Amino acid sequence: MKVDSTELGKYIKEIRGTFESSLKALVDIPSVSVDPEHKADVERCAQFGAELLRSIGAKATVVPTQGHPAVMGELIKDPNCPTVALYHHLDVQPADADEWKSPPFDMTVDNGIYSGRGSTDDKGPALTGLYAVLWASRHNLPLNFKFIWELEEEIGSRSFASFLKSNKDHLQADSVLVSDTIWISRDCPAIPYGLRGLQGMLLRLKTGVKDVHSGLAGGLARNPIGELCQLIADLYDARTGKVKIPGFYDSVRPSSQTELSNFQKSGFTVDGFIKSHELSSVRTQDPLEAVQRIWSQPTFELHGITGGYSGPGIKTIVPYQAEAKISMRLVPDQDPAKIMELVTSFVKKLNADVEVIPQDSLRPYLGDLSGRFAQAACTAMTEAFGKQPAFVREGGSIGAAVTMHEVLKAPVIFLGLSLPEHGYHSVNECYDWQQASGGIKMLAHYFCELCN
Amino acid sequence: MKVDSTELGKYIKEIRGTFESSLKALVDIPSVSVDPEHKADVERCAQFGAELLRSIGAKATVVPTQGHPAVMGELIKDPNCPTVALYHHLDVQPADADEWKSPPFDMTVDNGIYSGRGSTDDKGPALTGLYAVLWASRHNLPLNFKFIWELEEEIGSRSFASFLKSNKDHLQADSVLVSDTIWISRDCPAIPYGLRGLQGMLLRLKTGVKDVHSGLAGGLARNPIGELCQLIADLYDARTGKVKIPGFYDSVRPSSQTELSNFQKSGFTVDGFIKSHELSSVRTQDPLEAVQRIWSQPTFELHGITGGYSGPGIKTIVPYQAEAKISMRLVPDQDPAKIMELVTSFVKKLNADVEVIPQDSLRPYLGDLSGRFAQAACTAMTEAFGKQPAFVREGGSIGAAVTMHEVLKAPVIFLGLSLPEHGYHSVNECYDWQQASGGIKMLAHYFCELCN
Repeated sequence: MKVDSTELGKYIKEIRGTFESSLKALVDIPSVSVDPEHKADVERCAQFGAELLRSIGAKATVVPTQGHPAVMGELIKDPNCPTVALYHHLDVQPADADEWKSPPFDMTVDNGIYSGRGSTDDKGPALTGLYAVLWASRHNLPLNFKFIWELEEEIGSRSFASFLKSNKDHLQADSVLVSDTIWISRDCPAIPYGLRGLQGMLLRLKTGVKDVHSGLAGGLARNPIGELCQLIADLYDARTGKVKIPGFYDSVRPSSQTELSNFQKSGFTVDGFIKSHELSSVRTQDPLEAVQRIWSQPTFELHGITGGYSGPGIKTIVPYQAEAKISMRLVPDQDPAKIMELVTSFVKKLNADVEVIPQDSLRPYLGDLSGRFAQAACTAMTEAFGKQPAFVREGGSIGAAVTMHEVLKAPVIFLGLSLPEHGYHSVNECYDWQQASGGIKMLAHYFCELCN
Repeated sequence: MKVDSTELGKYIKEIRGTFESSLKALVDIPSVSVDPEHKADVERCAQFGAELLRSIGAKATVVPTQGHPAVMGELIKDPNCPTVALYHHLDVQPADADEWKSPPFDMTVDNGIYSGRGSTDDKGPALTGLYAVLWASRHNLPLNFKFIWELEEEIGSRSFASFLKSNKDHLQADSVLVSDTIWISRDCPAIPYGLRGLQGMLLRLKTGVKDVHSGLAGGLARNPIGELCQLIADLYDARTGKVKIPGFYDSVRPSSQTELSNFQKSGFTVDGFIKSHELSSVRTQDPLEAVQRIWSQPTFELHGITGGYSGPGIKTIVPYQAEAKISMRLVPDQDPAKIMELVTSFVKKLNADVEVIPQDSLRPYLGDLSGRFAQAACTAMTEAFGKQPAFVREGGSIGAAVTMHEVLKAPVIFLGLSLPEHGYHSVNECYDWQQASGGIKMLAHYFCELCN
């Protein structure tokens, strides 16, 4: 099928008001999945998500899980038509209002820029998908649509596998479209075919039951923060990022020459990366090494150390406990469970008193960038944004993608719309109409391509 | 002069009610000098301190300084009599009420145990001194008394030197008595003749302006907490406590055989130390090495690392800044300024981006345990507690002691009353009537000895 560009342009213009009011209503619900205090908000967000699905004529159900609910929707044209499942998530990262320019849960619209937590990750792209499907439905495209809107993506998709398995028959599709990835830059669209996995852990050390006076006890008392620092320095070299855990890199699948060549042609620049993340410096200036570091190499990351004194200045105590918050991004073919074993045994060898507490675990993903779905995605993105997308990997983790690939046995296509400056997980997260309108256009083309 | 033991016993019994109500009134004022929010409480505590001095017939003045005020008092018998200056401090460490068994600023009395912040450090000993002077005054001892009650001891005695210099003439004394030190255990009284100094510092590293997504940026973005951990591991070995900064130990004065022999006879046991500080293990089991570690060896101590995520579980961000809160206890003849230079240049060599911010600085002190004041102290303690005190050093720092020794040019005698289980700087700090009553007895004997 061919897209009538003039008509599509008119539709996009008309839908803008609806898109913006729906997005504001959605962003204004603080669906912070990690925070038990927001449990009711997450539930409310799911219910509102279902209403939005119904508003375009889809059937929608809020499905309870062991954790937060998931939203399931469908818009069936004809059982004999091919089916596209659209995956998005409606839960968001926490946000500390004090650090934001405008309140994170009171979305502002300024010259086509939508600021608020979840605007780009992933509520904006979810609505972009929704209103592209509405267009397809109004134009009687011979396609069925299914919607999978998760509310536990930011906490490692804990209940997603069991939700998907239980509702497998309802969610069966010929292909899955995921829109939760990020371009290289506004001028460099990207289609990723691989995701990093994740293994989180806490390292905890307790050497007493209360802080003690650093004059009276210092020198003889152990210092749990100091010992964790030393342990961490033995686990990885923070200056280079190199992980020192024996066997850590053993299962890393080397990149092919084609992949490296694609990486090199992706349009990624170190300066662009530094600018969009507002960093003062990074670990390398070499662009190829840089993209490998964020796309195809595993990491060891320290998110925080708690314990001891955290107020202004110093407090002369020897702390009695400390906890290091860590996660490792993993790449094919690293297995999170195996990595957890390697880390635990190495930690125990270095400091037997340190407790190793596994956290969220997500497997890495490496898809295949060939076949009709991938080709359709490439064509659609080129049509909509006037630029050929780069074929890259993505450094983040979408556990749901791996699960959908396995349970639904359907190809997973990543058609992301977010930009680095949209600030995934950062303060002042935003999305914009340029990406949303281009996204509706891209998806309209994509759906039409699938009808050919 | 001789002490009439029966009469002294009667006095102590009678004064108990006054002592306890005064202590409660004093402890209930949250005079937390480090916290700007408690500025008015610190001021109120100074005023109340002056009232307490007046209640025993002394003249008292609250003296403003650049920081918190100091309290100055005197009870002059006869200008021709020798003068004893008593130093105490009325400011206290912060206290997090959630962690305490009973509210830190609402003193409880339970079977002669006084629980509350500041009860042992140093409000209880201050009142012990006060009511011993009242006894001396009532018995017309040929002694003059001066009181120096500081309110900035817990923040490094920032204004003390200038206060002392400005009021030198008023505060002139033949000897200074300091009661802010700790025994080995309830059965092992101790008279320290040395104190460790202190040099605090913050190590700060900023690598961006906001937390960024650890999937999108992890591997390429620098991790300031990781880099500080690595730096700290290069500055000291947390497992052994050994400082790796070149030149750090160069000025440490070795202990004489006599001193080591005194240390060995002090009654210190590693098990007792572990028990009183409620530790799970310590860096050595050897008692002589243990006491050197806390009395005569310098330390490197990490009080906390801030930056990054500190909530429950993990948050997959790369933090953009981190601050390590550190202090080093110093021993004779280490010079805080020189140590600060050594650390700064070593840090700059290891990681040039790390900012080194000096904090409070206190010089170490080593007095002489001979002469009539020391002998009087020893006799008094033996009389009051039935046990010969050990001659030891103290691991803590009392900057004021060094300053008084220099400005007043008078010998400084440490007659502490606190016990390890009283929990200096810890939760559930307490003091007890056994030490307070013994303390009044000890000081009565000490004052009488000074009249001989």
